[in-house]
Amino acid sequence: MTETITVRGFIGNDIRHITTDKGLPISTFRLASTPRRYDRERGEWVDGETNWYTVTSFRALAQNVHSTLAKGDPVLVTGRLKVRQWSNDTGQRGTSVEIDADGVGHDLTFGTSSFTRLGGQQA
Amino acid sequence: MTETITVRGFIGNDIRHITTDKGLPISTFRLASTPRRYDRERGEWVDGETNWYTVTSFRALAQNVHSTLAKGDPVLVTGRLKVRQWSNDTGQRGTSVEIDADGVGHDLTFGTSSFTRLGGQQA
Amino acid sequence: MTETITVRGFIGNDIRHITTDKGLPISTFRLASTPRRYDRERGEWVDGETNWYTVTSFRALAQNVHSTLAKGDPVLVTGRLKVRQWSNDTGQRGTSVEIDADGVGHDLTFGTSSFTRLGGQQA
Amino acid sequence: MTETITVRGFIGNDIRHITTDKGLPISTFRLASTPRRYDRERGEWVDGETNWYTVTSFRALAQNVHSTLAKGDPVLVTGRLKVRQWSNDTGQRGTSVEIDADGVGHDLTFGTSSFTRLGGQQA
Repeated sequence: MTETITVRGFIGNDIRHITTDKGLPISTFRLASTPRRYDRERGEWVDGETNWYTVTSFRALAQNVHSTLAKGDPVLVTGRLKVRQWSNDTGQRGTSVEIDADGVGHDLTFGTSSFTRLGGQQA
Repeated sequence: MTETITVRGFIGNDIRHITTDKGLPISTFRLASTPRRYDRERGEWVDGETNWYTVTSFRALAQNVHSTLAKGDPVLVTGRLKVRQWSNDTGQRGTSVEIDADGVGHDLTFGTSSFTRLGGQQA
Repeated sequence: MTETITVRGFIGNDIRHITTDKGLPISTFRLASTPRRYDRERGEWVDGETNWYTVTSFRALAQNVHSTLAKGDPVLVTGRLKVRQWSNDTGQRGTSVEIDADGVGHDLTFGTSSFTRLGGQQA
Repeated sequence: MTETITVRGFIGNDIRHITTDKGLPISTFRLASTPRRYDRERGEWVDGETNWYTVTSFRALAQNVHSTLAKGDPVLVTGRLKVRQWSNDTGQRGTSVEIDADGVGHDLTFGTSSFTRLGGQQA
């Protein structure tokens, strides 16, 4: 199956934006999500450990992400999770955790936004 | 368990906003989500049937939803699903499908937004 | 979009199973999910209100649901949510909340199971 | 926030089961999920790349996972996603992708199961 995931968090870096040779716009950013849990012994809410994701978007969404979002912004992201093993020329290996975004938006829990609709893409 | 759900869709009516006697801000709107599926026989994407939800938000999120969103806006919503049976004084009964929103935002698939951060709430 | 949802709950009735004229097996059952939340004032976990769903499955899954599950069983269900308005000949109207199941299984939180694999369907 | 995720996939190894000094049962296994997508050019469904997860369960669920599941079994898992950076004594670093399971079950898409209910845990 394809795992869908939704994350509310904060953008951890500047948005990277490229256009491929074939004209495909792609934007990526790092997203941090920190769970809150109620600590019964202390009688208060405390932070858990942070999950970090690389969020990738394409086409119109990539362009609007690029022109709208900035480091530190609170956002909602929903998309498809990709857990990938990688290795590079120097023999390093690792695991990357990416979200191919279907939708991204500023989280109105933290502020207001003024929206400008652009042409015609389907949901 | 508590069912969490994420919906990308369009706002179907004007935002309703009240403040209770105890000072709690509450906003509600109707949200329409229409799936797209690939019809192999016709070789094209077609619309499926629309799901309608009542989206409720509270506190700071309610106030920002009220001052930011309008009928027709494309949004992302994530929250907890509530399926409730109701009846009224005239003997009518029915089922309501609500989302208690944890996060709401304009969907950047469809445009750009300018965000103004307001004070201090936790994710 | 298509809303995917996962529910852990208990089966509320006997499984209904039919085979259509075209030979398509379909099973349906009612599923109840009750959230638990920590009540800080009382210092204990309490039940919230129950969500009820109609779960529909097709083909091999429908046949295995029919031969495996029974009223009262604890199960996990994942699938696509469908919120539908209906009306009948007598003028009644209502809303149904269905899950088109992609996967169903006994919840091992509550017991053990002995599994018999049957032929060849893809995930 | 806490990211919840549901995965349907196949168990990739033998179940590991331990009991801590304090008497807490813990089970872990590796879970592989491979998406299927319709390739329009080829006119058929093809496999995408596989996501691998480490699934951890505790208490009664851990014990029932241990006594019920085996390598190769098709299962559904729902729980909380944890993306963690790690390093070890030799200076290696990496990223782990874990699911803290809330519910686990055999996927009836692929077979039938006989369930034995054990005592009393809440959903």
